[in-house]
Amino acid sequence: MYDTHWSLRERLIRLGVCLVSALLFWVLPSPSGLPVEAWRVFAVFVGVILGILLRPYPMSVMTLLGLIMLVVLGVVPLDEALSGFADSTVWLVVAAFLFAGAIVRTGLGERIALALISRLGRSMVGLGYAIAVSEWVLGPVIPSNTARGGGVLAPIVRSMAEALGSWPEREPERAGRYLMLVGAHSNLIAAATFLTGMAANPLVVRAAADVFGIEFSWPQWFLGAVVPSLAGMAVLPWILRTLVRPTLEETAPAQQAARARLAALGPWSWRQRAVAVLFALLILLWATKPLHGLGTTTVALVGVGLLLLLRIDSWEGMLQTLGAWDALVWLGGLLSLADRLREYGFIAWFVERAATVVQGFSPLIVALALGIIYFYSMYGFSMLTGHISAMVGAFFAVALAAGAPPLLVVPLFAYLSNLCGCLTNYSTGPVIIYYGFGYVSAPRWLSVGFLIGLVHLIVWVPLGLGWWKVLGWW
Amino acid sequence: MYDTHWSLRERLIRLGVCLVSALLFWVLPSPSGLPVEAWRVFAVFVGVILGILLRPYPMSVMTLLGLIMLVVLGVVPLDEALSGFADSTVWLVVAAFLFAGAIVRTGLGERIALALISRLGRSMVGLGYAIAVSEWVLGPVIPSNTARGGGVLAPIVRSMAEALGSWPEREPERAGRYLMLVGAHSNLIAAATFLTGMAANPLVVRAAADVFGIEFSWPQWFLGAVVPSLAGMAVLPWILRTLVRPTLEETAPAQQAARARLAALGPWSWRQRAVAVLFALLILLWATKPLHGLGTTTVALVGVGLLLLLRIDSWEGMLQTLGAWDALVWLGGLLSLADRLREYGFIAWFVERAATVVQGFSPLIVALALGIIYFYSMYGFSMLTGHISAMVGAFFAVALAAGAPPLLVVPLFAYLSNLCGCLTNYSTGPVIIYYGFGYVSAPRWLSVGFLIGLVHLIVWVPLGLGWWKVLGWW
Repeated sequence: MYDTHWSLRERLIRLGVCLVSALLFWVLPSPSGLPVEAWRVFAVFVGVILGILLRPYPMSVMTLLGLIMLVVLGVVPLDEALSGFADSTVWLVVAAFLFAGAIVRTGLGERIALALISRLGRSMVGLGYAIAVSEWVLGPVIPSNTARGGGVLAPIVRSMAEALGSWPEREPERAGRYLMLVGAHSNLIAAATFLTGMAANPLVVRAAADVFGIEFSWPQWFLGAVVPSLAGMAVLPWILRTLVRPTLEETAPAQQAARARLAALGPWSWRQRAVAVLFALLILLWATKPLHGLGTTTVALVGVGLLLLLRIDSWEGMLQTLGAWDALVWLGGLLSLADRLREYGFIAWFVERAATVVQGFSPLIVALALGIIYFYSMYGFSMLTGHISAMVGAFFAVALAAGAPPLLVVPLFAYLSNLCGCLTNYSTGPVIIYYGFGYVSAPRWLSVGFLIGLVHLIVWVPLGLGWWKVLGWW
Repeated sequence: MYDTHWSLRERLIRLGVCLVSALLFWVLPSPSGLPVEAWRVFAVFVGVILGILLRPYPMSVMTLLGLIMLVVLGVVPLDEALSGFADSTVWLVVAAFLFAGAIVRTGLGERIALALISRLGRSMVGLGYAIAVSEWVLGPVIPSNTARGGGVLAPIVRSMAEALGSWPEREPERAGRYLMLVGAHSNLIAAATFLTGMAANPLVVRAAADVFGIEFSWPQWFLGAVVPSLAGMAVLPWILRTLVRPTLEETAPAQQAARARLAALGPWSWRQRAVAVLFALLILLWATKPLHGLGTTTVALVGVGLLLLLRIDSWEGMLQTLGAWDALVWLGGLLSLADRLREYGFIAWFVERAATVVQGFSPLIVALALGIIYFYSMYGFSMLTGHISAMVGAFFAVALAAGAPPLLVVPLFAYLSNLCGCLTNYSTGPVIIYYGFGYVSAPRWLSVGFLIGLVHLIVWVPLGLGWWKVLGWW
């Protein structure tokens, strides 16, 4: 899960690329107008980001190595290097991971998914909608899209396909091919819809604060996404059916299997009820911030505190949610780096330079062009998180320089950051898992992904821009 | 390991005591001259400390609940409540835990202990010295005294006893009773000797910074301890032998068993060699800070970074070191609380009040009287950590008010904080484990503990005061 399995040679080559690149930038004289510390942080940042893309080591390790190097070389004081670990967005992600653990461990996640299949699974498209709705419902509280798609839903989707007599080796076209594609693509839409839908989403929020100086909070993220997200989810199962045409139409067996499994689960446990109530309470508190003033992270921590206080989940169980501590280290470390880039003046310098390039173009055109370049540049990346951390800050800076409206640029990039995962079969955990089941060939995954990418741009760009106009965001 | 097994009623009573106490302080009017926020933080602090002592929930949970309450009630902003998680002493402990994981997982810890027994185990007292030296050697790098004493050494000590024909039910007086007492008490001396010898030691350092404004660093902690610690370790196996008189004198079987097991381990693996070299490098870097200027935490992080870079340990293995994340949460949370108490003016106010009480007494007498009260107050506590977090700040404040020399008070309390664990059979993890083996009855543990307590005071107070005088500390 955390480590890659390169040969020693392969690993050394990949590590070498990171080290040599960082060293190259380091020894180059810093551009005029830029403080030398900012340039050196940037050099190490380049090495870390390359490390996240090439993965000679897990993401957390590359981030830690970068931070340690900056401290040892005296560029960044230790306190500043550690500052990201106290960041409230990092603890939002940690809290959401801990909360998600309770949803998975109590069996609530599985129960919700099965109930939706029992209700909506009358036809193949109905099953598709059941998967999409499950993703949408679990999106706000399971902040690792891998935990949500790969951990909770993928096993259910896979058993649906098998219940319908469709295996990777035998009749994949009957049902499985379609269901896997719905699972993967609806996971990405859910990831785009909620700030807590994907672990790296706070990086977009942080870049928005650093570059534009605006707070793009949980409710605002959701508000901007809700209209295009519902539209996108509404058309997804239907479009995928026309693209891959499952040969089976009769889905009663899957529906029956889901009902049987749901019946076998018996009545709701008090823990499942309690988690469901708490979950509803969190959503309510997140939505009513103006009334009580509690921030997103505080609300998430209240949820975790209540889970512990009411002994719905144990501290030992929470400690074993390794994803929470992994995210703390890599996200906290990246935020420390990003903060240094800003505070040492790199962002301001970059915006100034970018301004001379984009001068004379319409801000709206620049913003849209940047959005589309950003979207398709995902073809060159191996992971959503690496794509975001490498590019979003710089693209925001260029958009700012062009004079584009912040509340058009930020939501556009926030959502496209996740949606662009549709393009390849290796973009993020759940995509790799659904693809890895073997129902869909790589060429088909890429061609379907390209078409879904067009659908996303058509749904999210015009509809999004219109909706954000209605909201008065630009 | 993390949770207690109270009945629901018992748990509710314990939680009730914490809540009611916190509420009582909260509703009392804040004393004149003290800002109301400081008083409210103190009220919650009382609840958290009581929670750590009564353990209705694990330590981390009580700390988190206290922080969440302060944020929700608007007393402390979220950023300040999270600040402890970026504290460099917290990350020293986290790094030391991660490094210790490598020592245990590679088998280096066991190898060191077995080698010492093979060398020193010619007699019963020799075995005692082998255990004491093992504790002393592992002390600097295994920061959880429970991981060191309970995880690495206790199983070895237990198998020594059995190899010598001594079981809890059969002939415990033959060897086991003596060996268990040496194991437990030498663990506490090692905990006192190194800042990284016990997870809660940084709380003493923090209180010293908050109250006296001095940095009591890793090398300084060790320098102040080295003379009394060596003296104490030198007499411990010998004194315990006169106190409990093992009936066996011939220890060749234990020595042979250790040699056989060491031979069975085969040659050193490259990982064991590498960890040993890194470990020596860390000690060297910690000792030569003036030459390179790298702080204690930075050095520890360099050690972790090299473990990962050289693939001596995996990130996945480190993530599974749950003690690291547990310590991050409880220690970070307690430091956030302690920092608020200081910044909101509670410490200054308390020192002012205490000054009126201790006026007119000799500062040295006040310091020593406080030290002895602090030492014996451990009888009223169930855990070293709870004892430290509840008392050390307040005692420092009184000593400051009395005008006692900071570099006499801080080392005195630093070392007594660990040594006082000798008094009871439930003071800390390894004591509980060694006692739990069943070789030593509770009355005997308490009477031996009382005598060892006197020995500690005789060794550490006069010798310590003299040594710190030689060092020019007071």
